Amino acid sequence: MTTKLGQQTYQLDAPPRIIGYGSTGGSKEYEGPLGPYLDHTSPDDTFGAKCWEQSETVMQTLALTSAVERAGIAKEALDLMLAGDLLNQCTGSGFAARGAGVPYLGLYGACSTMGESLSLASLLLSGGCGRYAAALTSSHFCSAERQYRTPLEYGCQRPPTAQWTATASGAVVLDGKGTHGPAVTHVTIGGVVDKGICDPANMGAAMAPAAYDTLKTHFTDTGRTPEDYDLILTGDLGQLGWEILREFFASDGMPLCRYNDCGLILFDRTRQDVHSGASGCGCSAAVLTAWLLPGLNAGRWNRVLFCPTGALLSPTLTLQGESIPGICHAVVLERRGA
Amino acid sequence: MTTKLGQQTYQLDAPPRIIGYGSTGGSKEYEGPLGPYLDHTSPDDTFGAKCWEQSETVMQTLALTSAVERAGIAKEALDLMLAGDLLNQCTGSGFAARGAGVPYLGLYGACSTMGESLSLASLLLSGGCGRYAAALTSSHFCSAERQYRTPLEYGCQRPPTAQWTATASGAVVLDGKGTHGPAVTHVTIGGVVDKGICDPANMGAAMAPAAYDTLKTHFTDTGRTPEDYDLILTGDLGQLGWEILREFFASDGMPLCRYNDCGLILFDRTRQDVHSGASGCGCSAAVLTAWLLPGLNAGRWNRVLFCPTGALLSPTLTLQGESIPGICHAVVLERRGA
Repeated sequence: MTTKLGQQTYQLDAPPRIIGYGSTGGSKEYEGPLGPYLDHTSPDDTFGAKCWEQSETVMQTLALTSAVERAGIAKEALDLMLAGDLLNQCTGSGFAARGAGVPYLGLYGACSTMGESLSLASLLLSGGCGRYAAALTSSHFCSAERQYRTPLEYGCQRPPTAQWTATASGAVVLDGKGTHGPAVTHVTIGGVVDKGICDPANMGAAMAPAAYDTLKTHFTDTGRTPEDYDLILTGDLGQLGWEILREFFASDGMPLCRYNDCGLILFDRTRQDVHSGASGCGCSAAVLTAWLLPGLNAGRWNRVLFCPTGALLSPTLTLQGESIPGICHAVVLERRGA
Repeated sequence: MTTKLGQQTYQLDAPPRIIGYGSTGGSKEYEGPLGPYLDHTSPDDTFGAKCWEQSETVMQTLALTSAVERAGIAKEALDLMLAGDLLNQCTGSGFAARGAGVPYLGLYGACSTMGESLSLASLLLSGGCGRYAAALTSSHFCSAERQYRTPLEYGCQRPPTAQWTATASGAVVLDGKGTHGPAVTHVTIGGVVDKGICDPANMGAAMAPAAYDTLKTHFTDTGRTPEDYDLILTGDLGQLGWEILREFFASDGMPLCRYNDCGLILFDRTRQDVHSGASGCGCSAAVLTAWLLPGLNAGRWNRVLFCPTGALLSPTLTLQGESIPGICHAVVLERRGA
């Protein structure tokens, strides 16, 4: 069962456990700090598919296969599959679900989708909707560039505020009656926040106000402070958004201690040319599955606040002069004894 | 609480009630059979916005406003808002949520989105996640044509199997502790089904196998037959898909009695030039909110099986030669005494 705390937070009284996880990353991600921990990679980033969009379907399928293997269940045992991606009509996920034979719920939360899928899967299992659910997402640099910006062949330059869309996917399997693995104890569902940023090459600034809103609400709803967490992890604000969010909380007299961002973890900005950091919904998904969950299992942290962020823009609305709405969902992950 | 029946169906033991609904339709929809029952329309289909994509945001906002008014609650009392549409990056919904000040979960289920949002809202409320949730969706003929097919100015002809994307929106407000209004008693979450149809101008044929799969599963999971329903309503298979689905069940020796399709209800095909019927996720949303829910409240039916269908294609994947995956979610709506 679920207890509502304040305006936007749910406390999961019998918290589902994350019993399996899997990750996929492209060649640049493999060369980054998390390379050794990725389950799958592809030297040419195609993953054996003939088009970049179809590569995403392969990436999600690989991540899900590793997640169910670690969970020790058959894919067919999944009661629900909750997935989304950045492609128009979310085809990376829809086509991955086509081969899965599992009841499917498609989501769109831009780069916050891993937070949305993890939140929804946890709330549904906690409410008695089946036993096993998969939450997954992906992004691909090459499909994102041609869909959102310019074809790769154009060789467009980017400003320093821009981020690099991760070629990555992450999948988790949750067990509503699980007794081992990290527990999802709280979920804060965010609203849409728009402070008028219109530059699609500065998503960190567009999304930081949404992260601030959700985190503030989470602390108010739960009566907790940043000190209550061993790690607060937004994703993917990048360097600029990370600085803005830190500044917001510092101004409130509530400094964010032990605070990092998925966009700053996936790549090494000192030797990889990614400007403000990583982005894409595969970014927080890969950081979750290749770094955060193994770290929780290994005892590196006991309680983490995982807060994927998304910018709900589209190229069409941007050309029409619209500003960029942001969203952020927060999920509390706790290490628990088996 | 929720009881799982069979593989894909959930029985909602304390079923949420639909306490409010609202609908928006364009000029063609207003001239159709449901015109008198639509809450809002626009003679020039712009709804006062300067671009068709932005019209969708206005349409969703109007539908939601009527739904919360009928529910007798303030918009701010909503615990959750679950919405999606057909626009790239689901901007119709994301931008409508921007002004709502309500926790937001973005969905993508193509034309099945009203089924997905209604299912998820019901399951979440049934699991104790807050009290009030809104489920809504929209589509617009003009934005869909230029995004999926050709610009309107091109004046492209369409084959007889093609459907007409509805300019429509529908919103419902559910009360997890409600004592009046139609009850959501069961939900069957569908998987992704693809029988190899590659013609994006024949979506009825692409989606009918998914509807068949979900309906068969629903009858098996619940132990019910088509006879147990006063009305079975798919949406939006159109004339061709409706015939295919009827044929599938007839071949099984389980004829679908009292069976209709939202794509055949929104327009009058004898006097409106819409070829195989209506489509778009606004179609089933408007039929639900302008016809089905008022009819249930008026005692026209006691138990209805509402089954929105979606085609999870994208123009990019179709150009790459991919076939069209379909999906369908089924929701049981029951008239209950107050």
